[in-house]
Formats: sequence, C-alpha cells, structure tokens
Amino acid sequence: MNWKLTLTYDGTDFHGWQIQPEKATVQGHLADALRRITGTIVLPQGSGRTDAGVHALGQVASVELPGNIPPASLLRALNRALPSPIRVLDAQPVPADFHARRGVIAKTYEYRIFRGELCPPWLARYVYALNWPLDFAAMQAAAPQVEGEYDFTSFAANDPDLTARRSEVLNNEDGPGNIRRIFSSNFSLREDPDGAVLIYRVRGSGFLHHMVRNLVGTFLDIGRGHLAPDSMPRILDARNRSAAGPTAPARGLFLEDVEYDPAVLIDDASH
Amino acid sequence: MNWKLTLTYDGTDFHGWQIQPEKATVQGHLADALRRITGTIVLPQGSGRTDAGVHALGQVASVELPGNIPPASLLRALNRALPSPIRVLDAQPVPADFHARRGVIAKTYEYRIFRGELCPPWLARYVYALNWPLDFAAMQAAAPQVEGEYDFTSFAANDPDLTARRSEVLNNEDGPGNIRRIFSSNFSLREDPDGAVLIYRVRGSGFLHHMVRNLVGTFLDIGRGHLAPDSMPRILDARNRSAAGPTAPARGLFLEDVEYDPAVLIDDASH
Repeated sequence: MNWKLTLTYDGTDFHGWQIQPEKATVQGHLADALRRITGTIVLPQGSGRTDAGVHALGQVASVELPGNIPPASLLRALNRALPSPIRVLDAQPVPADFHARRGVIAKTYEYRIFRGELCPPWLARYVYALNWPLDFAAMQAAAPQVEGEYDFTSFAANDPDLTARRSEVLNNEDGPGNIRRIFSSNFSLREDPDGAVLIYRVRGSGFLHHMVRNLVGTFLDIGRGHLAPDSMPRILDARNRSAAGPTAPARGLFLEDVEYDPAVLIDDASH
Repeated sequence: MNWKLTLTYDGTDFHGWQIQPEKATVQGHLADALRRITGTIVLPQGSGRTDAGVHALGQVASVELPGNIPPASLLRALNRALPSPIRVLDAQPVPADFHARRGVIAKTYEYRIFRGELCPPWLARYVYALNWPLDFAAMQAAAPQVEGEYDFTSFAANDPDLTARRSEVLNNEDGPGNIRRIFSSNFSLREDPDGAVLIYRVRGSGFLHHMVRNLVGTFLDIGRGHLAPDSMPRILDARNRSAAGPTAPARGLFLEDVEYDPAVLIDDASH
C-alpha cells in the first residue's frame, strides 16, 4: 500500500531532511520508525529537502508499505516510534503511483523574525531575533515585487562546494532551470505576549535551494535601508547571487504546506 | 558592586543549574559570561538548584562584580555573551550582603501537562504530554490539600546514591528539616491553539529536592484513579516516599518566581 504522510518537525537538532550515514536526519528517523513498525527497510521520499535547522509544519512524504495497516494505527505507531521533535499529523493511503515530489502544485514557506530586546528561550529555536531598527513598511512594499514568474538565479544558493551535478539536483528538483512562479509573497505582523513577530509568507510553484532565506535576507537589507524598497526587480534582472542580500538563518524558516494536483491523489486507473 | 540577576532558561540542554566540570550548566554558562564581561572569575549564586531539564521563568542569582557597570549595559552584555537558551531578564544593584539563597520568602513553580493525541514539536520540550484519561476535577480537588505547613518527607527525593551529607544539603538548602509551608497549590486549564494544557502552580516557603515533581506525579495518580482524591493528608502523614506517586518528568517544570523579604533588597546600613 502506498502512503502519503504529513509531518511537522523541529529541525534544530537534525542535519536536515535527507538521510545521511551516522547523522540524525528527519528522513533517517522516519525510515527507522517505519522499519521498526513494518519489519521492512523502506526509504520514504519527501516533497523536497529541508536544510539543517529548518522546521516543517506540513512536510509531505510518500512511502510504499507492505500489508494493510489501518491509517489510525499507522499514525499512532509512527508517533510512538519517532522522537518528540518529529510528529506525523496525517497518514493517508494514496494511489500506487503517488510520489511526494511529483504533482506538487504549490509550496508555502513561512519565515519568522522576532523583534525585541529579549527573545525568550522557548522562541529562540524558531525565530531569527533582530533588535536593530527596521523599516517594516518598506519590507511590506518589497515582498509582492517577486510575485509572478521570474528567473530566481539571484536568490539561488551558490553551493560552491558542491559538484555541478549535485547543485543541479538541488536547484532543479522541483522544476526546470531557475524559473519559478510565486503566487503570493507578503509580510504580516503578529503581536505575541513575548514580543512582535514579523512573518514572511511565500507560496510558489517551487523554490530553489536557499531561495526563501535569500529573499528574507534581501528584504531585511531593504528594512535596514541598505537597499531601496524598489530593488527587487533590479535584483531579479541581475541573475546574479551577489546582487541580493545575505542568507537569513535556517532557524526562522518553516515549510508550512505542500499542495498537490488533486488528480495524483485520486485512485483512478484511467488517469 | 553586588548584583541581583533574574534569569529565564530552557533547561533541556543543560545538566541543571549547578556548575560541574566538563558539563553545560546554567551556572557555568553564567559564570563564563561574567568572566568574559568583567575579566574576573566569579561564581554567581542561585536561589537554589534546578535539576537537569527543569526550566526557569524567573530564577534569581546574586554575584559581586568589580567596578560600576550601568545596569542596562550589564544586561545587554550578558544577553550577548550567553547562549540563546539562557536570557537575563533583569540586572539590579543590591546591598552588599544580599545573597540569592537568603531572605527568600516564597518560590513559585509551574508544571505543565499537555493533553492530546499529538504534542507539537515546539511544545514537547516544555510539557509532559499525556494522552490517557484523567479526572481533572479530582486533581483540582486534591491540589489544595497540601496548602499549609507540613512535613513533606513523602514528597522528598530519596537520593539513595547521594551521601547523607549531600542529601542533607539538597533537601535543606531552603529551610530546616523537611517542613515547608505551602501558600497556594492549584490546577488550572489553559486552552492553547495546539491543545489543552493543565497547569499546576504551587507557591511555598521552600521546596525539597524533587518535591514539585513528586506532588505532580501523585496528583496524576489521583487523576488516573490509582489513588483516591482525598489521599494527600494520608500521604503527608506517612512521611515515607513510597506512599506518594512517581516523579513527574523534569521537562514540564518551571521555576516561575523567587520572592525576597523587601528588607534584604534595601540598602540600609542599620538593618
């Protein structure tokens, strides 16, 4: 039986999603839990990688498991077998040809920036804490400038230490080349009891490696006045990583949601 | 100059408050930060120890530092020097004879129990997640039964692996013998977006080692029906650790507040 698993995790203590020998990763923990539950060695496939320290509110994985496990039993067994920073929110049987990386029509990411003198310890793992002055209105004005279909080379990781082949895989796993469509890109403000949190939310057809963190680093340069509020079109045009701002830290980033073409979730032999 | 520091910390990744060679502790990190700021080796004294994994919302430490540092500068420098799981909320100059362990008139602890199938990863470090049925009304009825002055031997850590001397220090650092006064002891319910959290809050003159966690473990035995709701007076009378319930895990426990006799905070040579 083929399964779609929806996961949430705190990425702080993991070396990212992708399984690696001798390292704690989300995919590795999930494979290990599934092996203990089913007695079979399987490798669940994610909708994409998340880097070390990046969190997920709704990562999706697919995996083929032997037998007919009731979904509620699989869900319970997985949450018992997994460490507490990884939780499975949903386990759903899907057509045999469903694959978490295929049929994705949109992904949504959220980036959280804490504002204030003192970031409480229980938020520190989940936000980028910044106390310097920021022109939030300028950042709000800049965010929608990347909505539409663009070449996002300026916001793609350089990955100079990776071989050309690996870099290509990283950048292209959710689409061809460096062109992506951004459906929405905006900042909002959430007043928490502990302080204000600026939330950047972006929904797009796919994202290049480090793209959200590089966008946020650039918006922060605009907020600090290092770049003009209308810089985004020029930076996109440059198609050069050095035109954009720095990479914001992983800890503020959450993969919030992965949306699929409904057709890939419907068991219909004719499609 | 003598200082009163108020600290909050996430205890998950520390071997408790007390400094230990080669281990990450809160006192150790604080001493290290103070040494880097002042160039002097000092040992800040806490209002009491917190065990490994126990958190603090308002732990108090005292320390004598050379020179005249403006309080705001010390606060900023400390929060820069400390790792993000430890934050200093307040730095206040106090009389030369102020010591964090003396003149304490009350301490307040909070214990958080998460109810629900799925504890979100970002709460897992700060709650005891329990999904089995609990008679919350029985727990609420039992909590105030420990208000008043009692011998809390039944709720004191056995510490069988400690020498008698060390055990005595642990149990008696905030008062003589095993008699303590509990001013208030109650349960409340907080409905969070992620699920319900039962909150046990207890304010007392002082607490024996493991006392709050042993009280909570006993209230949970009452909630599960293993003990009658009116068991607390009998358990107190027994003066025997085996009469009470198990020790609840450290991760749900927060030292919330330490209150001092106002006289110890006033710089008056005549007192």
